[in-house]
Amino acid sequence: MTPLPAAFEHTLSQLLGDDWRTDPNSLQAHAQDNSWRHALPQGVAMPRNREQVQAIVRACRQHGVPLVGRGTGTGTTGAAVPTAGGIVLSFAQMNRIVAIRPGDRCAVVEPGVLNGDLQQALMPHGLFWPPDPSSADICSIGGNLACNAGGPRAVKYGTSRDNVLGLVAVTGTGELIQCGGPYTKDSTGYDLTHLLVGSEGTLALIVEATLKLTPRPRSQAGLRVLYRDAEAAAAAVSRVMAQPVTPTTLEFMDARSLQLLRHNGAQVPEAGAMLLIDADGDDDTLPYLLNALAEAAEGDGMLALDVATDGSTRDKLWAARRALSPALKTIAPGKINEDVVVPVSQIPALVEGVQQLSAQAQLPIVTFGHAGNGNLHVNILYHPEDASENERAHAALPKVFELALQLGGTLSGEHGIGLAKRDFMTQAFSAGTLATMRAIKQALDPDGILNPGKVLPEQEDL
Amino acid sequence: MTPLPAAFEHTLSQLLGDDWRTDPNSLQAHAQDNSWRHALPQGVAMPRNREQVQAIVRACRQHGVPLVGRGTGTGTTGAAVPTAGGIVLSFAQMNRIVAIRPGDRCAVVEPGVLNGDLQQALMPHGLFWPPDPSSADICSIGGNLACNAGGPRAVKYGTSRDNVLGLVAVTGTGELIQCGGPYTKDSTGYDLTHLLVGSEGTLALIVEATLKLTPRPRSQAGLRVLYRDAEAAAAAVSRVMAQPVTPTTLEFMDARSLQLLRHNGAQVPEAGAMLLIDADGDDDTLPYLLNALAEAAEGDGMLALDVATDGSTRDKLWAARRALSPALKTIAPGKINEDVVVPVSQIPALVEGVQQLSAQAQLPIVTFGHAGNGNLHVNILYHPEDASENERAHAALPKVFELALQLGGTLSGEHGIGLAKRDFMTQAFSAGTLATMRAIKQALDPDGILNPGKVLPEQEDL
Repeated sequence: MTPLPAAFEHTLSQLLGDDWRTDPNSLQAHAQDNSWRHALPQGVAMPRNREQVQAIVRACRQHGVPLVGRGTGTGTTGAAVPTAGGIVLSFAQMNRIVAIRPGDRCAVVEPGVLNGDLQQALMPHGLFWPPDPSSADICSIGGNLACNAGGPRAVKYGTSRDNVLGLVAVTGTGELIQCGGPYTKDSTGYDLTHLLVGSEGTLALIVEATLKLTPRPRSQAGLRVLYRDAEAAAAAVSRVMAQPVTPTTLEFMDARSLQLLRHNGAQVPEAGAMLLIDADGDDDTLPYLLNALAEAAEGDGMLALDVATDGSTRDKLWAARRALSPALKTIAPGKINEDVVVPVSQIPALVEGVQQLSAQAQLPIVTFGHAGNGNLHVNILYHPEDASENERAHAALPKVFELALQLGGTLSGEHGIGLAKRDFMTQAFSAGTLATMRAIKQALDPDGILNPGKVLPEQEDL
Repeated sequence: MTPLPAAFEHTLSQLLGDDWRTDPNSLQAHAQDNSWRHALPQGVAMPRNREQVQAIVRACRQHGVPLVGRGTGTGTTGAAVPTAGGIVLSFAQMNRIVAIRPGDRCAVVEPGVLNGDLQQALMPHGLFWPPDPSSADICSIGGNLACNAGGPRAVKYGTSRDNVLGLVAVTGTGELIQCGGPYTKDSTGYDLTHLLVGSEGTLALIVEATLKLTPRPRSQAGLRVLYRDAEAAAAAVSRVMAQPVTPTTLEFMDARSLQLLRHNGAQVPEAGAMLLIDADGDDDTLPYLLNALAEAAEGDGMLALDVATDGSTRDKLWAARRALSPALKTIAPGKINEDVVVPVSQIPALVEGVQQLSAQAQLPIVTFGHAGNGNLHVNILYHPEDASENERAHAALPKVFELALQLGGTLSGEHGIGLAKRDFMTQAFSAGTLATMRAIKQALDPDGILNPGKVLPEQEDL
């Protein structure tokens, strides 16, 4: 890797002072994300305002230096790992909540604000921001927007893309663009806002976001429903989603998940599949909502239904779901966790197909997740130090993606593409669609300095 | 205008047979929209499938012929008027409902399907597609998507952009692209779906859409609330939107609207402003929802609150709202109706500012509309044949836009830009933002054949 040009280093040093870092500790601290991919950057820029972001992008463009935007590095796809060298631009110091506007149901934030910190700040206003990835306490809003993060609540409240009203961003040319704003209806020009969400820092760097807020419901309650098999549970998911009461969460666990939990001592009855269904509302309406959901959950193949109307009973029902990710590690230290999406009606076919892949690979594969969105986490478990298991696990992965695509689904519902799924994009999209995505990349980042090599597959030489 | 090249006409005639029209009646029938702008096309293509659309676009590209996509021409901005000559591509014959998938809460449709026909087809499934523009019975889904149509229900259910899951479209290069699909969560590559919605046929032609459906609520009920003045009503709007029960509709009418209705014999009490607030749910929960909304609506400056729990009482309350548009014509034959958006908290400032403009222009300006989204219809009423009134009306219009922008709002919430607001885009967006929109236009339509001259303002020669 060629060293950074001296003139570039001089410019950034002049611009940022101590906020330009090249010491080994700083480089090391910005070298990986939660995918455990690792690549040292050549420098770390920690701007404090949008003007500095613009100046950094312009310097990178002038000197042809790659630039990787970074929140807190909780992503799982390698999107924040500087595999092409160059610099990491960390938003850690752009973490102000600029405004909370309860009357307009929105908040204006810098990208470095942590999701959890925003939720805390919104609490006194009776509002919340819906995206709830499992890393909510420690991940940044900018990162949430970059990969279109979701979480269990997305079935009712949508993902990050559905909960942003406007953005200020810096494109690959250093241009500051502003789109959308503190309003919920907009037919004014091209929708740059939603285009930037999920583009993983490859089109522009978000420097401010106007977020759509939702009033916090007064009460929550939940159901735990056991089924004979995945098919019966999936049929219940379709029934639940076809009636007017949308659940707050609608989580699915396959037979393997339940076996695993029992194996780890959790109080989970024998069943072929389980749904956790939550509702929110107020004390007056919640019993009716829960009743509507329970009625929809009932049907052929249902074995048992438990209701939790108070917080502590609900916590007990949910304990199993929370215990699941840690429990995976008790089977095998290695885990490939992908968040494929299928149409809700195809959940049984996905679960069945995954079990066939598990048998072929002779490896346990555990499937659970956000069934209301057809967004299931498929976890291939293996011992990385066992060469054969390692090979079989990585050979099974493309087959999981193929299966999801065959069923009319897609590669990712909330983690994004990054490096992890980049090479499968040619299966998900036609050449013409990918060419159009590349043309948009070229339009916003003509020199290809923003997060090069991520999202879009390498182009074949013609 | 130069005639269409003979080779081009030959190609289209070979491709389309009788579905290629150049007779005067056909040209006349595709020359205007509901903005009453008028320009004859040089030919009308009425394809029956996506392959024909691709072939038409390729022929237009090869011969440099402008192409304007068209639904049923109910748009109000001139977006469907072929002002640059060339051909109109009508989707009237691509009007199949391809699939209704209740289990996946989605429908797949061709762009020519009428909004009202889709709603009818969804009725037996207990589902609906939320966008409800006032022209719903006669406007097409493709047109709804092209201008990101909304309607009163958008406050609860969102606009067209919020209710589409995937698109198949033909770009300006003739490339067929496919993005999204029958699933509700997607972090896979660039979000072309939401980018195309609202781009008014300038980036690509939608040939198929996968629409997000919502279960039809079992019951509806409404409130009519009268206030001392617009400020008191707007404060109530903010209160309603800050609590957890989102109304199905939240419509505002200013003092002028109420005067006008009374003047036309409607049974509307004296008041400074009125809100119509609807809720939907089921028989069990609706009374609680209505109660929560009524509590939020109550406050300083409220004069009276009427409840309509059954359909016919509700119809009576809504009769006033429906009578409003026709009533406008009894004041003056000319009407400039713009659908500006402001943050909800700025509604009083908008209403006050508009009344000042009304006084300055010495013309009645009536303001009403979708207050829950801050999306108000500002109607400047004048006699077009009176040169002075005509001039004053058209001089007031830019001031309405300036006011909305000053208040942190934007130009259009549901009608789009077309020709009507194109020249105000330079006030709504920075030069850098417009340059980025132009770069995207260039990326998807490099020869500028798709609906030239719409949405983006003419570029100044440098």
